[in-house]
Amino acid sequence: MRVEIVAVGTELLLGQIADTNSQWLGERLAAVGIGSHFHQHVGDNHERIVLALRTALARSDAVIVCGGLGPTQDDITRAAIADVMNVPLERHEDLVEVIRAMFSARGRTMPENNLLQADVPRGATVIPQTRGTAPGLICPVGQKVVYALPGVPYEMTDMVERVVLDDLLARVRASGETAVIRSRVLRTWGASESGLAEAVAERFEALVGDPRITIAFLASGIEGIKVRLTARGDDDEHAGWLLADEEALVRDAIVGRFGDIIFGVDDETMEDAVARRLLESGDTLGLAESLTGGLIASRLVNVEGASRWLRGGVVSYASAVKFDLLGVPEGPVVTAAAAEAMAEGARRALGSTIGLSVTGVAGPDEQDGQRAGTVFVGLALGERTSHAQLALPGDRPRVRAYSAISALDFLRRSLDERAGEA
Amino acid sequence: MRVEIVAVGTELLLGQIADTNSQWLGERLAAVGIGSHFHQHVGDNHERIVLALRTALARSDAVIVCGGLGPTQDDITRAAIADVMNVPLERHEDLVEVIRAMFSARGRTMPENNLLQADVPRGATVIPQTRGTAPGLICPVGQKVVYALPGVPYEMTDMVERVVLDDLLARVRASGETAVIRSRVLRTWGASESGLAEAVAERFEALVGDPRITIAFLASGIEGIKVRLTARGDDDEHAGWLLADEEALVRDAIVGRFGDIIFGVDDETMEDAVARRLLESGDTLGLAESLTGGLIASRLVNVEGASRWLRGGVVSYASAVKFDLLGVPEGPVVTAAAAEAMAEGARRALGSTIGLSVTGVAGPDEQDGQRAGTVFVGLALGERTSHAQLALPGDRPRVRAYSAISALDFLRRSLDERAGEA
Repeated sequence: MRVEIVAVGTELLLGQIADTNSQWLGERLAAVGIGSHFHQHVGDNHERIVLALRTALARSDAVIVCGGLGPTQDDITRAAIADVMNVPLERHEDLVEVIRAMFSARGRTMPENNLLQADVPRGATVIPQTRGTAPGLICPVGQKVVYALPGVPYEMTDMVERVVLDDLLARVRASGETAVIRSRVLRTWGASESGLAEAVAERFEALVGDPRITIAFLASGIEGIKVRLTARGDDDEHAGWLLADEEALVRDAIVGRFGDIIFGVDDETMEDAVARRLLESGDTLGLAESLTGGLIASRLVNVEGASRWLRGGVVSYASAVKFDLLGVPEGPVVTAAAAEAMAEGARRALGSTIGLSVTGVAGPDEQDGQRAGTVFVGLALGERTSHAQLALPGDRPRVRAYSAISALDFLRRSLDERAGEA
Repeated sequence: MRVEIVAVGTELLLGQIADTNSQWLGERLAAVGIGSHFHQHVGDNHERIVLALRTALARSDAVIVCGGLGPTQDDITRAAIADVMNVPLERHEDLVEVIRAMFSARGRTMPENNLLQADVPRGATVIPQTRGTAPGLICPVGQKVVYALPGVPYEMTDMVERVVLDDLLARVRASGETAVIRSRVLRTWGASESGLAEAVAERFEALVGDPRITIAFLASGIEGIKVRLTARGDDDEHAGWLLADEEALVRDAIVGRFGDIIFGVDDETMEDAVARRLLESGDTLGLAESLTGGLIASRLVNVEGASRWLRGGVVSYASAVKFDLLGVPEGPVVTAAAAEAMAEGARRALGSTIGLSVTGVAGPDEQDGQRAGTVFVGLALGERTSHAQLALPGDRPRVRAYSAISALDFLRRSLDERAGEA
């Protein structure tokens, strides 16, 4: 069963709103094991909606079309579907009554154009509304089907959960398919996409022609590179162990090549990874940021419960602030020694058990004889103060963003090292 | 000229990431007067990418395909385009050298599979990379064209601005379309979309049926609401004065209703607006951020030349940091008095001429008897210390982001007031 999603609305083509409906539907369908191989956006234009639906029906088994079911002149999805089905629209008097009743329940008179929403292509089944006025439709087209749903996310998701998924799954069973799909994302920082691909090349080759497991890489810029494993099993349990087995193999391949670069799974961010370790060790953190200008702090405060381990930070953008507030010795400020002094100064000034600092050159010009992208991370952790030196690519915002996640990764690894020594 | 956008990536179909590329492209194309009538999403599958491209070429004049140009086994857009063009892939040795050089500049050896990125369909033109390794492609298909761009937004947008828009506009001109389109965005903070629409309702009505000018509203969340004016003239000069006339009328309507809520035009951000005023007045800024956790500082350091007016900031996440480092009197910290004391403390501790502070409740729980979304902005400016109180909607990250831009807007207006008094 292949489902195609068609989102209707000129505002999508103009980029005025994000298409969250297709994203939600894709995720929801995948979770019950139904693939969607194509999505389309099309504007509020009769001929083009008809063309998009015909295209979708030619290459997919079922189509979910979202939007264009409202009461105004640009809501023309019903008429387009009737064209594709080659049937007339018929006004359903029971729907007229339902819509009229919804208005009178709110003490409002119904504008006449709302009656458009009671028009149904001959042969289609109505999906009743519980949250708005526009009913959904199940429209048979030969052996295939078009589901028409409102574009309002809150109304659309309700109809999907209440009717559409069950209807689709019944069609899947009728066709004899039974697969369940499960996926997991491994999040990495510190290797290139091509390096990761080489590390798991053996798994890739072993899986050629195997429809049960797929591996994909997703370069996520300043959040590192994601490795997504997807398993297709006969049932939930089967998919679960297929996924677990593959994850173990892929983890071994990555860790064997690059060491401890997997910092989280699925939605876990680098700041979540750091927060978990700080909570475990009972440490508190103070920051000194010059290059990153508060970026690290602003990421950390988004972790729920950050107040339990985050004391705060000093954004020492002017050199004098480094000298006065952090007690860094006067002199060049883009050096390993300055980074270490900043980390110790942050710990002292903010009263934390750990101090983390970043200093460097965002560019485009060099500073203190260091070229753009040169960054030093300082860490005051227990008796030991250490640093890391980085050479980062990109313009100013990228150098900053890479520095922030690199500094957090340095802290994560250092905390793990300390825990390993204890 | 009708452009179709094809976004490649199984992660889009599975809903694992939002398709921000198509949204950005749709908006960018519309701004230069080029329509996109269809968008598609397709997974990392050769046959289906070929089918999506053929579908797009059948119903559109040009296709922009994003994604699948990376160095790994699932990056197969190049091969799919070659199939559609019915030509072989050829390895470009000059691209091999460029890619090799990028790796050696970072002191890393190049994994061999990066060479895939040097494969180009015969007859295609290369769009050089400035930010990553995968080159873009301009691929002629009969009288039509396919642009292949990387899926990484930062690399994609660079190629669009640098090459693709000009190439498309040259094709538009070659086709005999002669209208020149100019647009301007007025950026506002502090009014609702429906309020703005009401304010300019008269202009909307006056322009009904006039194809030369369009007005659109674009709610941009934490960056406020943009009002985009687009003029279509016979030549550059004609479009220019159409736009200038309309801008004057719309500005009058907005300012007459809401006062000084237009903080910038086009790409000018709130931090740019603040920076310009600080440069003019010769002031320096020190920040004290608790709720916003460094977000204001991290926005300000992205302005070029920020070191001329930004001293730094204190992220006082723990209350004790407010008392110790900023000299705030002990007591409740989500109050107007605490915000003002923080602003004065920041000015003193950081040695700046102006102090700006934010304290508040990000939620979901209340704090100091204040409900989630309650925010105080403090400002120490010359002899006067003042504050603003806000009640903001949304979850934690939204409350923070709204607080940051609101605080900067408060500073912008206060600087203008002082300049008006002088």
